[in-house]
Amino acid sequence: MVPPVAHIEAADRHGEVDIKTAYVRGVNRFAVKIASGFPGNAAHGLPTGSGMMVVFSAETGFCEAVLLDNGYLTDLRTGLAGAVAADWLAPKTIGTVGILGSGVQARYQLLSLALVRKINRVLVWGRSPEHVSRYVEEMQLLHGIKVEIARSAEDLVRQSAVLITVTASRSPIVRAEWMQPGLHITAAGADFPGKQELDPAVLERADRLFCDRLDQCRRLGELQHWKSDRPLKAVELGAVIRGAAPGRQRDSEITVCDLTGVGVQDTAIADRACAIAKSKFPELFAD
Amino acid sequence: MVPPVAHIEAADRHGEVDIKTAYVRGVNRFAVKIASGFPGNAAHGLPTGSGMMVVFSAETGFCEAVLLDNGYLTDLRTGLAGAVAADWLAPKTIGTVGILGSGVQARYQLLSLALVRKINRVLVWGRSPEHVSRYVEEMQLLHGIKVEIARSAEDLVRQSAVLITVTASRSPIVRAEWMQPGLHITAAGADFPGKQELDPAVLERADRLFCDRLDQCRRLGELQHWKSDRPLKAVELGAVIRGAAPGRQRDSEITVCDLTGVGVQDTAIADRACAIAKSKFPELFAD
Repeated sequence: MVPPVAHIEAADRHGEVDIKTAYVRGVNRFAVKIASGFPGNAAHGLPTGSGMMVVFSAETGFCEAVLLDNGYLTDLRTGLAGAVAADWLAPKTIGTVGILGSGVQARYQLLSLALVRKINRVLVWGRSPEHVSRYVEEMQLLHGIKVEIARSAEDLVRQSAVLITVTASRSPIVRAEWMQPGLHITAAGADFPGKQELDPAVLERADRLFCDRLDQCRRLGELQHWKSDRPLKAVELGAVIRGAAPGRQRDSEITVCDLTGVGVQDTAIADRACAIAKSKFPELFAD
Repeated sequence: MVPPVAHIEAADRHGEVDIKTAYVRGVNRFAVKIASGFPGNAAHGLPTGSGMMVVFSAETGFCEAVLLDNGYLTDLRTGLAGAVAADWLAPKTIGTVGILGSGVQARYQLLSLALVRKINRVLVWGRSPEHVSRYVEEMQLLHGIKVEIARSAEDLVRQSAVLITVTASRSPIVRAEWMQPGLHITAAGADFPGKQELDPAVLERADRLFCDRLDQCRRLGELQHWKSDRPLKAVELGAVIRGAAPGRQRDSEITVCDLTGVGVQDTAIADRACAIAKSKFPELFAD
């Protein structure tokens, strides 16, 4: 049971707040996740984003925990959702992994992908050379993953067997003619009206389109830019996982999965975090 | 800036959760209010409703406070919203005040009304004689307000100059033919599809209709039951207060105000509560 994302615009401060939630039958808790972006914070040396989760008992509706995680659980679940998409949709054996973008999710997506696929070679490209080299350095130092820098977005896409896009772009970067057969793209950057990383021709050229939640992706994700006369055929990843719809059928197919982030993921990770916290620190929880 | 109420239905547990929020320009904080109703709790001796507010800085988006108020601030602001409606819409001098219902809001609405009008006589009616006599006793003992018990809903309405309806009814109780000239009704019970306290003829017979928020009242309040061929003309209370629309024009007019509760009220009371808490207990707040 997933209500639409509640969105607050603090227009006079250029701030934005998103509230996501979901009730999942069989899960002991449900979370209300409140995430904000206030770009003006940077001028005061403060983080521009923050996030927290309030966790409720699914049995009584009582508040069970307030997770002041500063967006950590969101970063984690977003990366893991990307890995789930790649696990179900990318070929079993993959060549070069391309990361478009060098921010927080460039980190989580790659580390999560490594949980489900053997990573042979990683390429990265981003607009800021400084951020890109910091990314390369950090991946090597902290995680022992060697990352090479592509010459351009085109160079990155042309060499990629799996492409993960995690920029905040508002105009298309990835062109259809750069894609090789068998490419799987996880588009995780666009999560708001106006955001876009893929040329609409990428969606049209793809053999199969997938998404986390269709109505939400049509409003907030890459699928908002579907312009073709043909009806949009995009399958929710959940339908693939539970066997109700086919995933990738051949290694040569091009697949695109549009991820915007769903409250179900917040409820799932909050439930897990609380279960762990409760077993390790029972004194923090009332009976 | 008020996003629609996010509603979660925990169908397998008959639980419900509402999330309300609003960003108000010029107010230093904004609140996300999470209120739940889980009727099954009663069997375990637990309260069926709970509510809390998470309060954020409107400047940075950072969480500033978590108010574990168990719904107290909601009860308070709901009562006060009723008083604001009566203050702007009821005649200055009023005869008998009728309270339809004997629950929590029967208490808060009457106490709030007493802040804006001289109360001469109060009548109450409710389905449970036991709850009604507890209400009468409590109003007398705790607040020194003498409340008489009406013989029936009809008796109550026929004698009322101001009528406040605060039941959880799902079928109309108040009939149009019971209303006297000059009656003001604040309908505060219906706040969900299917809930209804007023016969639709009450809305048609009224000289002027008001509401807290039109789109929400059309979905959740009494206005959802507007069936007439005439277009619905209902004015938001805020428009009356800021002088953009007329309120009551003559003492003999019948006015109805449909209240469903708006996130703006939660943000306003949370901001006030935090300001008071911060001045009294500065050590609880980080700099």
